Amino acid sequence: MEKLSRNSRVVAITKILMGSPNKIIRLNKFSDLLNAAKSTISEDIVIIREVLQKLEMGKVETISGAAGGIKFIPGIGDDKGKEFALKLCDLLKDDGRVIAGNFIYMTDVMYNPEIIGEAGVILSSCFKDKKADYVITVETKGIPLAYEVARNLGVQLVIARRNTQVTEGPTMTINYVSGTSGRLQQMSLSKKSMKSSSRCVFIDDFMKGGGTAQGIKDLLKEFDSELVGIGVLVDNKEAEKTFIDEYVSIVEFKSVEKLAITDIKPSNMFT
Amino acid sequence: MEKLSRNSRVVAITKILMGSPNKIIRLNKFSDLLNAAKSTISEDIVIIREVLQKLEMGKVETISGAAGGIKFIPGIGDDKGKEFALKLCDLLKDDGRVIAGNFIYMTDVMYNPEIIGEAGVILSSCFKDKKADYVITVETKGIPLAYEVARNLGVQLVIARRNTQVTEGPTMTINYVSGTSGRLQQMSLSKKSMKSSSRCVFIDDFMKGGGTAQGIKDLLKEFDSELVGIGVLVDNKEAEKTFIDEYVSIVEFKSVEKLAITDIKPSNMFT
Repeated sequence: MEKLSRNSRVVAITKILMGSPNKIIRLNKFSDLLNAAKSTISEDIVIIREVLQKLEMGKVETISGAAGGIKFIPGIGDDKGKEFALKLCDLLKDDGRVIAGNFIYMTDVMYNPEIIGEAGVILSSCFKDKKADYVITVETKGIPLAYEVARNLGVQLVIARRNTQVTEGPTMTINYVSGTSGRLQQMSLSKKSMKSSSRCVFIDDFMKGGGTAQGIKDLLKEFDSELVGIGVLVDNKEAEKTFIDEYVSIVEFKSVEKLAITDIKPSNMFT
Repeated sequence: MEKLSRNSRVVAITKILMGSPNKIIRLNKFSDLLNAAKSTISEDIVIIREVLQKLEMGKVETISGAAGGIKFIPGIGDDKGKEFALKLCDLLKDDGRVIAGNFIYMTDVMYNPEIIGEAGVILSSCFKDKKADYVITVETKGIPLAYEVARNLGVQLVIARRNTQVTEGPTMTINYVSGTSGRLQQMSLSKKSMKSSSRCVFIDDFMKGGGTAQGIKDLLKEFDSELVGIGVLVDNKEAEKTFIDEYVSIVEFKSVEKLAITDIKPSNMFT
């Protein structure tokens, strides 16, 4: 291929980095694709790193050594994060979201790629130093968010099912008490889905008492694996978290009363 | 903010475009953020468009008029698409994937962001001119892929559930015959989840007889909406598609015999 200008090269490198967050990409890949010396590519990367940092659009890290290269770590600035959380509060405050049983209708939010894309970057930033091997969730509403966090962390997604499935092979099943419904529930995970001794981040749409997170913890024990982080989009502060200590959320509210959500605000992550 | 060099501006614009595929972004947004004249930004965009086209990394389209701007349309070249499909065949051919009942274990593939990210670009390319309002799937295994297609098309994702849920408000339920299990099954969709008179693309992990696609068609009728496209990752050619005519897949195979998948190959999309 003909030689490209620096302008063109930085576009191509940026595009490739964005497409594989948290994956180490060797400089050879860029120099082969763009027909340029590795020293030239290194200079291109300096430009990309500087502008992304200046505009708070994430970081480019250099990994040295034989398996070295560069990787892109997604991130948004604190101000933009808070702005996003405030917009999310406005959206959830909307009339008509509280449905029978004092549940909040959030399906449209959880399945909106623009919202979930940004939430995924924010949550993944919280866990970027946890050396996670997997992101885990329980079907169904939290799947797109968990997928985004997994994508941004550069790891595999794992989904616990509510029922065992013929297409999943041998499965491990545990019982847990869901804080949302207060009922005893089951979750199952295929034996094939996870290596033992893994580190996992649990992502969900909503947290109330933390029963589901405790269930995930129990399930992971059966895989000799460890829960190293918990992140949710929305935290209901009404219920005491009897099961878990540490977790992060993007927005929180006090309670649902008379068909309205009270005191909804960005979580303490943004203060 | 201080003025940036062209090198820096094209990095920032590329980053923003990649983050919002198929969404029209006004030039004002870039000129405000980067403190540059709109004519300068237009020149930057020409550079980005040319290099992405040259490297077959997608298109940048200009939309004129009052609501105009530019949008990024994801895409990968035919060669890269075929290379991806061949790699996927190799992965699925692996021993040990066929489990009791002649099912193929694909969960690891469906929850792998690197694979699903690329598959999502390929499938979204097939539907980019369909003017879809939503991408729809049935829980659970196809959700990450459907999410990627929705993200790449810049539309909302909708997920039909196998059981009605208290958190979804009033729901519409239909019965259908699943080709995989041969059993009568149900799927439900929240009345709030879709506007009537919508155009929808159905995405799933796997197709056998097409019963699920027919179920989606029936469900959409109840929302006065239309199925305008069907895309799956893997097509089982063993069963006649009695219910549907047109659909796309990335790989296909003939049958599962003696614990092995026979004749797996890239679909006719790549010939």
